[in-house]
Amino acid sequence: MTREMARIGSVAEIRARARAVLPRAVFDFADGGAEDERTLRRNEERFADLALLPRPLNGAAARDLSVELFGRRLALPLIVGPVGLAGLFWPDGECAAARAAAQAGTAICLSHGSVCTLERFAEAGAAARWMQVFIYRDRGFTRELTERAAAAGYEALVLTIDNQLLGNRERDRRNGFAIPPRLTAGTLAGMARKGRWLWRMRGEFSRITFGNYARPGEQANVAALAARMGSLLDPGMSWRDVEELRRIWKGTLLLKGVLHPAEALEAVACGVDGIIVSNHGGRQLDGAPASIEALPAIVTASGGKLAVLLDGGVRRGADVVKALALGARACLIGRPWLWGLAVGGEAGVAQVLEMFGSEIDRVMGLSGISRIDAINAELLFR
Amino acid sequence: MTREMARIGSVAEIRARARAVLPRAVFDFADGGAEDERTLRRNEERFADLALLPRPLNGAAARDLSVELFGRRLALPLIVGPVGLAGLFWPDGECAAARAAAQAGTAICLSHGSVCTLERFAEAGAAARWMQVFIYRDRGFTRELTERAAAAGYEALVLTIDNQLLGNRERDRRNGFAIPPRLTAGTLAGMARKGRWLWRMRGEFSRITFGNYARPGEQANVAALAARMGSLLDPGMSWRDVEELRRIWKGTLLLKGVLHPAEALEAVACGVDGIIVSNHGGRQLDGAPASIEALPAIVTASGGKLAVLLDGGVRRGADVVKALALGARACLIGRPWLWGLAVGGEAGVAQVLEMFGSEIDRVMGLSGISRIDAINAELLFR
Amino acid sequence: MTREMARIGSVAEIRARARAVLPRAVFDFADGGAEDERTLRRNEERFADLALLPRPLNGAAARDLSVELFGRRLALPLIVGPVGLAGLFWPDGECAAARAAAQAGTAICLSHGSVCTLERFAEAGAAARWMQVFIYRDRGFTRELTERAAAAGYEALVLTIDNQLLGNRERDRRNGFAIPPRLTAGTLAGMARKGRWLWRMRGEFSRITFGNYARPGEQANVAALAARMGSLLDPGMSWRDVEELRRIWKGTLLLKGVLHPAEALEAVACGVDGIIVSNHGGRQLDGAPASIEALPAIVTASGGKLAVLLDGGVRRGADVVKALALGARACLIGRPWLWGLAVGGEAGVAQVLEMFGSEIDRVMGLSGISRIDAINAELLFR
Amino acid sequence: MTREMARIGSVAEIRARARAVLPRAVFDFADGGAEDERTLRRNEERFADLALLPRPLNGAAARDLSVELFGRRLALPLIVGPVGLAGLFWPDGECAAARAAAQAGTAICLSHGSVCTLERFAEAGAAARWMQVFIYRDRGFTRELTERAAAAGYEALVLTIDNQLLGNRERDRRNGFAIPPRLTAGTLAGMARKGRWLWRMRGEFSRITFGNYARPGEQANVAALAARMGSLLDPGMSWRDVEELRRIWKGTLLLKGVLHPAEALEAVACGVDGIIVSNHGGRQLDGAPASIEALPAIVTASGGKLAVLLDGGVRRGADVVKALALGARACLIGRPWLWGLAVGGEAGVAQVLEMFGSEIDRVMGLSGISRIDAINAELLFR
Repeated sequence: MTREMARIGSVAEIRARARAVLPRAVFDFADGGAEDERTLRRNEERFADLALLPRPLNGAAARDLSVELFGRRLALPLIVGPVGLAGLFWPDGECAAARAAAQAGTAICLSHGSVCTLERFAEAGAAARWMQVFIYRDRGFTRELTERAAAAGYEALVLTIDNQLLGNRERDRRNGFAIPPRLTAGTLAGMARKGRWLWRMRGEFSRITFGNYARPGEQANVAALAARMGSLLDPGMSWRDVEELRRIWKGTLLLKGVLHPAEALEAVACGVDGIIVSNHGGRQLDGAPASIEALPAIVTASGGKLAVLLDGGVRRGADVVKALALGARACLIGRPWLWGLAVGGEAGVAQVLEMFGSEIDRVMGLSGISRIDAINAELLFR
Repeated sequence: MTREMARIGSVAEIRARARAVLPRAVFDFADGGAEDERTLRRNEERFADLALLPRPLNGAAARDLSVELFGRRLALPLIVGPVGLAGLFWPDGECAAARAAAQAGTAICLSHGSVCTLERFAEAGAAARWMQVFIYRDRGFTRELTERAAAAGYEALVLTIDNQLLGNRERDRRNGFAIPPRLTAGTLAGMARKGRWLWRMRGEFSRITFGNYARPGEQANVAALAARMGSLLDPGMSWRDVEELRRIWKGTLLLKGVLHPAEALEAVACGVDGIIVSNHGGRQLDGAPASIEALPAIVTASGGKLAVLLDGGVRRGADVVKALALGARACLIGRPWLWGLAVGGEAGVAQVLEMFGSEIDRVMGLSGISRIDAINAELLFR
Repeated sequence: MTREMARIGSVAEIRARARAVLPRAVFDFADGGAEDERTLRRNEERFADLALLPRPLNGAAARDLSVELFGRRLALPLIVGPVGLAGLFWPDGECAAARAAAQAGTAICLSHGSVCTLERFAEAGAAARWMQVFIYRDRGFTRELTERAAAAGYEALVLTIDNQLLGNRERDRRNGFAIPPRLTAGTLAGMARKGRWLWRMRGEFSRITFGNYARPGEQANVAALAARMGSLLDPGMSWRDVEELRRIWKGTLLLKGVLHPAEALEAVACGVDGIIVSNHGGRQLDGAPASIEALPAIVTASGGKLAVLLDGGVRRGADVVKALALGARACLIGRPWLWGLAVGGEAGVAQVLEMFGSEIDRVMGLSGISRIDAINAELLFR
Repeated sequence: MTREMARIGSVAEIRARARAVLPRAVFDFADGGAEDERTLRRNEERFADLALLPRPLNGAAARDLSVELFGRRLALPLIVGPVGLAGLFWPDGECAAARAAAQAGTAICLSHGSVCTLERFAEAGAAARWMQVFIYRDRGFTRELTERAAAAGYEALVLTIDNQLLGNRERDRRNGFAIPPRLTAGTLAGMARKGRWLWRMRGEFSRITFGNYARPGEQANVAALAARMGSLLDPGMSWRDVEELRRIWKGTLLLKGVLHPAEALEAVACGVDGIIVSNHGGRQLDGAPASIEALPAIVTASGGKLAVLLDGGVRRGADVVKALALGARACLIGRPWLWGLAVGGEAGVAQVLEMFGSEIDRVMGLSGISRIDAINAELLFR
């Protein structure tokens, strides 16, 4: 495995490797987007449209990638973002990622849909850990998760606002993707061709479920999951719920999934600490703008009164630098670390973080920038 | 058939299935456009260019998709549009579609070129039925059709203004498409490979003609059809004809095929009730703009004095929402329901309408929109 | 041949047929452009970018495609443009085209590089014939050709200004294209596979040369041709030469190859009667703009004081209408009629002209336009 | 070889030939760019976006391509740019190129990373020779190279400012590219298929190293090279270093790798004689703008107080003319001459320079331009 990983030098390559080792339904679950996957592609394409204008003679003998965020210094402006079911990609995948994040000196945000429970994750060693939640129809469950997160020492609570209805993920439907994995002739055949993953996961299948709230042993195919989510998640959530959460949660509070500047203005009014500009990686509303094109108006609307982060389409260190140049304080990654996890577990996630760190460092060095806060709009070519 | 349809979850998939079951000449008759098919492709591409900016925290616990149109409440802002020869795709296809529309709670517009007569269609069960006509060289025939539509209880008359000369449909020419189907070695070979369609339609061939005015039994290939249309349709039609129609038709009157704002202004002056922005699905003037890009200027020109609908390139619920955000009151679909009809008859059309309803509902839910009239330009990303 | 041509309904199809019947070197000689063929492609792409906004209810019961140009009425706003060596595509090809143009009621311009002499062409039956010339290093030869054209009753003289150096035609170089055809193992093999063309042209090879001034029997490969042209054509030509030509030629005088508005201004000052906006079909300066995008500034600069025509990328009737909407008085075609000639001789050229006429008529009818002079910028979508 | 080269008529063709004769790792070393190779492609694409607006009747009987630059007249506005390890493509490749440049009457810039030493190169016959250097961590070495260049009669010193960290060249990593060539099973197999190159280079392998400062015999794979460069090159270089170089170097001083207008302003203040707008051929910062799009702001910022040259994406004579029209005084080429070298040694480089000269001459002739200094923004289509 180590030799295999040594040959990998980019996120694109680790994705190709993940595709080779994972059953198709599992790979597609992470890789796919909603409907025609336009927003999925647009996330990456709009980064490619932006160009950087370096000033090498400013001199950057050494680069300091660290960034102060919500009172904590992170070693690089990149956070391991929340993705569901990481435990499907590697045994105890969430905890493996937590150790990699801790080693890299950055924060990690646990998904509500994690396989392991938030309490177990809290013991995995992540110094800076965030917890992601929803507004459930049963507001008591939102409160319960929040209280459990506080008790387990999570520093930040991330309220995802763009998942109140399940996105129309056509790859999952076509693949008959189910949680826990449904053993049909087709899926068994698909898995059999991926022997290494199958062997590694052999003891895990019965445990793969939503650790934080699913009833264990329950067979939840996509249709059933959608129904269940329908009864759990509340499309009627509103700013009153944000206010209530703000009242009960004493730590850092972030909203994830903000695209409209009007929502940034309201977030400021609600006393939220941060916004994550995101379209859920193109997995929810196909037709939403790319995160990077929605970012500038959000930064303007928030007027410096809260931290703006960005998630969606980040595949290179240069993407992180472009987001920072447009006013983001840091970026989150989702698929890239899942791919690393699928290929090498903790070491795979660590390698992804190292690649990003190395790429950000090189871009800064070539641009004549020594510190993260020296990255600004001057760096962009118009 | 039901299992086959259960695996289908998008208009693109139902199109692929229709392509598999239909003889090529029949599939192409519906699928093709004029000349280089630029307007055909542009209709879809310009929808893809638009992006939606959701505000999920506005809250949309339940979504009401219904819309009031010409004094009637439709269950969703989507109307089954007029397409000729639907009876070629499924036995008694127009009536099958009428039942599906009724079940979905929306309106359906019969094509002048339907296989079944307008009187028979009126008995098929559609609550809200519209009738589409042309200005024929023989104005008496226009008046006759209009009177028959009134007698049969049609609520709206749709005057199509962009078909006064037959479009240059190169696929039909190359395929030797003829009505009723011409039995040559080539077409027989093509049909033989589509056994299911052939078996289903075996008793229908002699009846496939233009129910409302063709002479039964007549063999009309494309050249003959063009000649015949040439003698039936009148490129000399003018606003005087619209005024005359307005005088004799007491119900709702719509113009279909408006692209130029100047025509919207004249339509208002003529007392027309509605305009359907359309380029005939790219089947007439190749080089016309996409319907969705022509829409805004028409909405502005009409100044709220009549209802503006849109037809052309609508393939997703998100497309409907985008058209509404730009000022349309509802959309029409053509090819999508024909594809559904070819795959599953009434059930196929019903499934297409359900898919649209489900997609519109999801887009509204994810965008924080509860009612159709809350959809406006704020929803669009600039 | 008639059956073959009956199946053809577009310029693209007749091009495909020409590709099938011609030796590659001959097809490429007509089809290719300079260097990377960017201008060649751009000519067609920029037409596709333009959209037409029809007003069908203006009414166009009958369409009159005729246009008055330099005191003569043409049956349609399309002229058979000058292309060299048409006699290589069909025996006596220039005269075949002249008969087709006469039959269609339009003008034809003979190329200086025709196989047949201008005197012989004058007898072929074209009513409205134009002659194209260059400024040769030997000004006496320019004057001689001009006097011969006057004596033979040509109505217009077309001075091509963008061919003073031979373009860098890489297909010709790679194909070893030579005039007259060089019989090597490779070219013989290439021709042998095109038996019909070979049989038809069997008696012609020795006669294929530049009828108006090449020394018969001379073997002129591309390199030799370039050298020869170098000694014939004069890149030092200037406005003084235009003034001189204006002085000696009493008929209509046009400049072909104008792209810069400054040259349009000078053309007005020189008393030129018309300008043909052209980039030589992308065969000379690769990197020149598309003719259709250069047109508007030329129309503005000429201020109505001379007729502006357009050449380059015209493949559909809609292209002609778009050029007229932007201010052109008529269009010229080159490759399309050569393809028709290669497929069917006089009948092939006639069919191409008929297709254009039919397409222009349909576009006008669908747009509510009855006369050519009613085509203006209102017809274009912005 | 001569027959092979006679068939080649464009840079694209000579690249294809180089690909055929070189081992993949060697071809990719020259051909590849950093990361996703976006800047690499953009360099060429942005040239293609620009269009030229000729004025043929201005007359250009003869074209003078010569240009005065830093007190010397060059025969054409094209300079043989610095590229490392040319000696890997042909025995004694740098000197072969020097002779070709001298024969073509233009300047050549030796790379710091040349295989041959700068002293040996100085004897190869280049009349106008420039030397490229870096700011090394050991400033003494920079001074030493500078003094050696002065002693060897170099006219200009080119300080490259965009290579202070090694770019992320993924092709090299994947190919296991190493200097000197590492003989593994894989690379041997790759080379064996390229017998001609292998035979020609058979005596050279042990000598292929960085002639000016590498320790001979040292095995430097990419990782080791990066480490070594890391210890040699200094990302902490700054304007103070430029000032110091300006102080010790009495000849012409240029900065290569300027993209930001602010750096052009500072270069003027430092008394630099020229700027080379460059992104290192897309080999360093992937995401930098194309050179040709960065050029206009640099020209404006420099205000005529120093000479602006351009490097990156120049593949045709028309590209050179476009750069000059936007204010560049001359262009540099890198890959094109390396490809020529790989195919034909000195004769291959000479052929590349001849092709550029011929193309520039033809573009000028077709545009009605006789002298280089008559090329300006009027020539560009907007």
